[in-house]
Amino acid sequence: MLTRLWRGLARHGRTLNERRGQQWLAQAAETLRSELGESSGVSLARRITERYAALPPEGRLDFLQMLATRFSTDTARLDAAIRHYAEHPGPAAAQLLHEAAESRRQEVLRRLNFAPSGTAALLRMREDVLELLPQHPELGEVDADFEHLFRSWFNRGFLQLKRIDWHTPAVVLEKIIRYEAVHEISGWSDLRRRLDPPDRKCFAFFHPTLADDPLIFVEVALTEDIPDAIGPLLADGRPPIDVRAARTAVFYSISNCQKALRGVSFGNFLIKQVAEELKRDFPQLRNFVTLSPVPGFMSWLKRAHPEAPELQALAQPGWQADAAAAERLRPRLQALLASYLFDAKTDIGRPADPVARFHLGNGACIEHVRWLGDVSEKGLRNAAGFMVNYLYDLDNIEANHEAHFKHGTIFASRQVRALREPAQRAD
Amino acid sequence: MLTRLWRGLARHGRTLNERRGQQWLAQAAETLRSELGESSGVSLARRITERYAALPPEGRLDFLQMLATRFSTDTARLDAAIRHYAEHPGPAAAQLLHEAAESRRQEVLRRLNFAPSGTAALLRMREDVLELLPQHPELGEVDADFEHLFRSWFNRGFLQLKRIDWHTPAVVLEKIIRYEAVHEISGWSDLRRRLDPPDRKCFAFFHPTLADDPLIFVEVALTEDIPDAIGPLLADGRPPIDVRAARTAVFYSISNCQKALRGVSFGNFLIKQVAEELKRDFPQLRNFVTLSPVPGFMSWLKRAHPEAPELQALAQPGWQADAAAAERLRPRLQALLASYLFDAKTDIGRPADPVARFHLGNGACIEHVRWLGDVSEKGLRNAAGFMVNYLYDLDNIEANHEAHFKHGTIFASRQVRALREPAQRAD
Amino acid sequence: MLTRLWRGLARHGRTLNERRGQQWLAQAAETLRSELGESSGVSLARRITERYAALPPEGRLDFLQMLATRFSTDTARLDAAIRHYAEHPGPAAAQLLHEAAESRRQEVLRRLNFAPSGTAALLRMREDVLELLPQHPELGEVDADFEHLFRSWFNRGFLQLKRIDWHTPAVVLEKIIRYEAVHEISGWSDLRRRLDPPDRKCFAFFHPTLADDPLIFVEVALTEDIPDAIGPLLADGRPPIDVRAARTAVFYSISNCQKALRGVSFGNFLIKQVAEELKRDFPQLRNFVTLSPVPGFMSWLKRAHPEAPELQALAQPGWQADAAAAERLRPRLQALLASYLFDAKTDIGRPADPVARFHLGNGACIEHVRWLGDVSEKGLRNAAGFMVNYLYDLDNIEANHEAHFKHGTIFASRQVRALREPAQRAD
Amino acid sequence: MLTRLWRGLARHGRTLNERRGQQWLAQAAETLRSELGESSGVSLARRITERYAALPPEGRLDFLQMLATRFSTDTARLDAAIRHYAEHPGPAAAQLLHEAAESRRQEVLRRLNFAPSGTAALLRMREDVLELLPQHPELGEVDADFEHLFRSWFNRGFLQLKRIDWHTPAVVLEKIIRYEAVHEISGWSDLRRRLDPPDRKCFAFFHPTLADDPLIFVEVALTEDIPDAIGPLLADGRPPIDVRAARTAVFYSISNCQKALRGVSFGNFLIKQVAEELKRDFPQLRNFVTLSPVPGFMSWLKRAHPEAPELQALAQPGWQADAAAAERLRPRLQALLASYLFDAKTDIGRPADPVARFHLGNGACIEHVRWLGDVSEKGLRNAAGFMVNYLYDLDNIEANHEAHFKHGTIFASRQVRALREPAQRAD
Repeated sequence: MLTRLWRGLARHGRTLNERRGQQWLAQAAETLRSELGESSGVSLARRITERYAALPPEGRLDFLQMLATRFSTDTARLDAAIRHYAEHPGPAAAQLLHEAAESRRQEVLRRLNFAPSGTAALLRMREDVLELLPQHPELGEVDADFEHLFRSWFNRGFLQLKRIDWHTPAVVLEKIIRYEAVHEISGWSDLRRRLDPPDRKCFAFFHPTLADDPLIFVEVALTEDIPDAIGPLLADGRPPIDVRAARTAVFYSISNCQKALRGVSFGNFLIKQVAEELKRDFPQLRNFVTLSPVPGFMSWLKRAHPEAPELQALAQPGWQADAAAAERLRPRLQALLASYLFDAKTDIGRPADPVARFHLGNGACIEHVRWLGDVSEKGLRNAAGFMVNYLYDLDNIEANHEAHFKHGTIFASRQVRALREPAQRAD
Repeated sequence: MLTRLWRGLARHGRTLNERRGQQWLAQAAETLRSELGESSGVSLARRITERYAALPPEGRLDFLQMLATRFSTDTARLDAAIRHYAEHPGPAAAQLLHEAAESRRQEVLRRLNFAPSGTAALLRMREDVLELLPQHPELGEVDADFEHLFRSWFNRGFLQLKRIDWHTPAVVLEKIIRYEAVHEISGWSDLRRRLDPPDRKCFAFFHPTLADDPLIFVEVALTEDIPDAIGPLLADGRPPIDVRAARTAVFYSISNCQKALRGVSFGNFLIKQVAEELKRDFPQLRNFVTLSPVPGFMSWLKRAHPEAPELQALAQPGWQADAAAAERLRPRLQALLASYLFDAKTDIGRPADPVARFHLGNGACIEHVRWLGDVSEKGLRNAAGFMVNYLYDLDNIEANHEAHFKHGTIFASRQVRALREPAQRAD
Repeated sequence: MLTRLWRGLARHGRTLNERRGQQWLAQAAETLRSELGESSGVSLARRITERYAALPPEGRLDFLQMLATRFSTDTARLDAAIRHYAEHPGPAAAQLLHEAAESRRQEVLRRLNFAPSGTAALLRMREDVLELLPQHPELGEVDADFEHLFRSWFNRGFLQLKRIDWHTPAVVLEKIIRYEAVHEISGWSDLRRRLDPPDRKCFAFFHPTLADDPLIFVEVALTEDIPDAIGPLLADGRPPIDVRAARTAVFYSISNCQKALRGVSFGNFLIKQVAEELKRDFPQLRNFVTLSPVPGFMSWLKRAHPEAPELQALAQPGWQADAAAAERLRPRLQALLASYLFDAKTDIGRPADPVARFHLGNGACIEHVRWLGDVSEKGLRNAAGFMVNYLYDLDNIEANHEAHFKHGTIFASRQVRALREPAQRAD
Repeated sequence: MLTRLWRGLARHGRTLNERRGQQWLAQAAETLRSELGESSGVSLARRITERYAALPPEGRLDFLQMLATRFSTDTARLDAAIRHYAEHPGPAAAQLLHEAAESRRQEVLRRLNFAPSGTAALLRMREDVLELLPQHPELGEVDADFEHLFRSWFNRGFLQLKRIDWHTPAVVLEKIIRYEAVHEISGWSDLRRRLDPPDRKCFAFFHPTLADDPLIFVEVALTEDIPDAIGPLLADGRPPIDVRAARTAVFYSISNCQKALRGVSFGNFLIKQVAEELKRDFPQLRNFVTLSPVPGFMSWLKRAHPEAPELQALAQPGWQADAAAAERLRPRLQALLASYLFDAKTDIGRPADPVARFHLGNGACIEHVRWLGDVSEKGLRNAAGFMVNYLYDLDNIEANHEAHFKHGTIFASRQVRALREPAQRAD
């Protein structure tokens, strides 16, 4: 009957009213979920994903709401499983309960993946969900199902690390331009400056079914010393260094590419594997560091120290150009920054700054804070121009990581720790 | 502490007693599951899978039993989730319940996949489970967790169809020789006869992380007419036909390669996609059929008709060589075969013959039964020499499939249906 | 001794005077040519090509002059071979004579190719020769040796046709931008408009040792009808057509990429193979045409008809904007164009227009002349805005080609031939 | 007219008499050579090569004789060029003479290469020439033209080194089995023993247009010490060594694959590049040696020392099994072997033994002679069981090579040189 309905749709095309289209989609999703879906799944999944992609926004919302309402957990089955577990507690009954509690949507989503480019279609679908979610909290479970599925499918064991360079296809490179989230890439010439010189590297994780679409990438500069500012690193006309003289690999930008993979994190894996690759290719490297922004510093400062006199100075446009005045601001701001990095926490006790949280959680330590490291408009606005070098000491990151999670330890160089004390006294 | 323990193990190597080794494995699995595992997971997973692979059989059993006992569902958490669901029934609470009911083992297995070649290691681990299971029913939940995971990971959307031919690497070809389950391949010359001639094709599904290891493959012969016996198809010295004259694609052998993927089925997808590929490359093809064994016929016959006089005749070695005598056996045996194919059922009402179940479930129909189609020792023993052509009519398989599952319909050609009636009358 | 000399050079580096460097290069080339070169050739060729690449322009000229003077034919050997041939005329002696007459430089060049990237180095070297040649006619034989060698090495049988599209590596694409010789590509967005839409194709020939460097490429538009102007074809914002409706493949730009391959022609092979590829992928295509410039028309017109009254009108900037006036110019200019295409010849009787010479020589015919087909500044200056559609009728190109070369026939549509008569009468 | 003739042939097919077929081939070759051939060359070359491949042996001989007689040098043109050179001697006239002396066949062969798989077709054609040559000396110039062309086309700069291992396509591996010329490979299991263990390597040169057909390959064993016999190296069931302990790379077999490339040598390039690859991958390697046969020893011995008493002993089958008797033979045979290696020469003064000639010419030195190193039937028959380790000392091979070619020096270890003196005295 489904086939007949579909043929009707195909014949009448766009003249059929939207309602019959939604009716078809709901039936198709039911069929896909059923025993029939195992067999005829590929063509059915293809039709559903194609039809969904062609829907206008309202139509997509209808479809997603239908997924939310018609494909939640089978409550009768769940209740029976709870009773069974109460009577026969144990692993076997728990497993049955686990199965019974799964929303029926999961199987729909798993089988939509049968379609050609099904994984890409599901990513686009979750992007819609994420965009609709603030206005449509009823899609919360749908989103949770997507996250659950993607955590399983985008398991690190399935990701492939690839170098991104000037031999990479344009279809991938234009995504690097588009997705760069930290220091904007202004076009193909800028891109080339970041990929092609011998002292610049870029690596990305790919999923095998998404050959043209990186999941996350990191840009790396090979330098002699640990850099203290981003400007010179990205300067046009910069002469490349002889890589034999390089002692430092600087991870100066990490960007996630797929909004739809919210809740599935790869950054930690990426940095570690890239560090290992670089170590193998350039055994002369001694330091693996970042040159990172401190995105939350200024908003924390305004919130936590609204009366801080420095705020007024920082509010003057161009303050950083007056070297002497800037230098007078420095000690107190460094102390405040140290206070922010060490003591500002989230509700569950993790570092408040998202970049600090990421690198410290990976087992890195705070090696340097860099006064006027980023004097771009964004750098000044978010962090009063501060940047931070987080150090990845490959021999210690696991132990650091363990101590950080068990005891909340924040590892930092002596020099950075020294910044903190006066601030604590001052406060 | 884990790291210290591991270093101890590494230092003392094989002199450490097995007990401390198992202790390390249990702790390592706990760490892997914990928040720590997200970050240091790759190296930890690598160490566990390497250590597991090096264990003797008893050590592996210990490890798997440890997985069974120490990583089942957290019952306290599950009980709380059940209470919460009772108080606030609804999708959100059901989702929490689903999560709480999941065995802790699932996360261990997912993170073991972080290891290099982790997926292959997990497949080997489930092979061990399946081998131990008959004697060790306590591993039942471990096995169920593997199946659950593999159903998600080996989703058809992630599989890649590849042609297998004489340009395929030897490392894959030797697996084709090893895994062929229907008509044994006797060596490289026999293999070449099946892959290299222009009228022979072979296709396999691969998973991206298992580049050298096919999951399932199908061997195809292009012929003019629908073949009635396997012997001539595989004959040495056979001249290939001009493929422009081919009208028929014969799927004469389908073999699963990975025991560890029990419960995850691909055959249906494979046949359909291969039929589409062939249709595109050889638009002159008219028929897509199998030449299939009937593995369960003789054992059914002995069980269902122990007094059938034919059984005596068939028990005489060489009976098939006496053409006249064989011909006298034929009508009654054909009727019995039809009875078997149409009426013998499993407990849940599916066709009893596993090959018939597979093809009829895919939406194929029984086109011909072939008397003396396989006179090999195996063919005579299992099926009195019978073979069956199942026809895949691409325009009808979906509708057939639907009717077969909804109403139990068994589609067959008029000719085959005609065989059945006298049998039913006779019975 | 060579090795010692080289080590000296390496030690003293750039402080050694240029003269000792040239002395080393001359000796190295001698050694490379000798029996020794067969064996130690790879490293020696590498050193010579690296050293040459590092030389300043004067140094390169010195090296090339050295090749011209020290490595010409061995006259003693040649004289002996002539005498031998006089005494024993016949194929064997002719073959010896052929060998004896070969310049010794040929073997030097062949062995320089042993170096890693040797072929690319030799291409760069001939580029230098071609640039120096006008001022340094003494390099004439060196250039002839390069051409001889490249004609052998860049034999069509060794070239690989590749599609150029948005999946092509950036390192190749930037060369497409740089080498486009007919209708300039203004940047990456313009490039994408020419490669990525489904109704646009691009193909290039590559040599296996020059993976990142196309030799020649052609840009193709799929259209419904034969286009009469280049502007709409390249317009930004143009909606792509449904390729199923395409009936025409338009070769609207062919560019050679390697100056160093002067005298080695591929264009004819490229067009024919691309036409075959397109025919296979899009069987619905009916017409294979060009939309070509007429680069020599205006200079011929000024030379052949200096008194033509149209010349004055064409000299007014913006003349083409006055539609009525332009239309009045048209008949007489079309007649002159026809006269140019049919009757203007080179010294050896080939068509004077280089583009006409190329396509007519390939067996194409003149299908349409297009008034105001190219109103760009260049199009107006070179050809009064005229363009030409040359038609490649795959069934007739061989016969046309044969007749064109044997009898000088210029094939043209009836419509184009009709333009010609009044002109001939007028003249 | 050619096209008409061809269509006639195609229509009448095999019923047309052979004479008209040969007439077509001759005309087709003329056309191919002419100006017409530049343009319609691909299809014409394809037809000629296909037709040639389908000819019976006599037809092929006819075609090759036609190439010999109808396409030799244009004598009128040559005579004119000789006169011109006499009047205006100099490089320009020499170059014209060089062109005029070239046989017209060269251009035919160059254009036959335009055909799809043209290079492979030309290799097969020269194989025919080489087979016919002993009975048909009139094909001598044809053969010389092939060699001339192949020396240009198979220039080392165009060859690609590839690893051959168990991931190599079967279509290549079966050629390794077929072409192995030194120590026969008995089948796929034997092949696997030579390619797959971690201490076994194989490398081959490929030409880009012959992807499935190696030109030459070398088999390498990684060992701790320099091996003294071939048997243990190839033994079935041999445990592989830990490659970290390997100090020696043994080139134990080098085989040319293409008879048609007689006169074009790659072995020297192959050994050196493989040594560099191995050095990079296994920096622990200290020695690069061969374990080589001495194919000419016994026939030299019989010729040079027909009365040597050892000859009688060696004529007894199984002599090598009697250890004491064999040991008595050893000193004198070693001295004779040294005499053979050092003093037996070809007409032009090169070492008489072909294997010695090859390795000494490459700059290797004789490191060890191995008594009973190869006790196979072939090893005993050709070399009384002797083998030789030639040492490639990467720092010295160029200097050795130079001295060997300039002064005839034969480099050998002190130990091997010591064997020689008594022999010289004795003689």
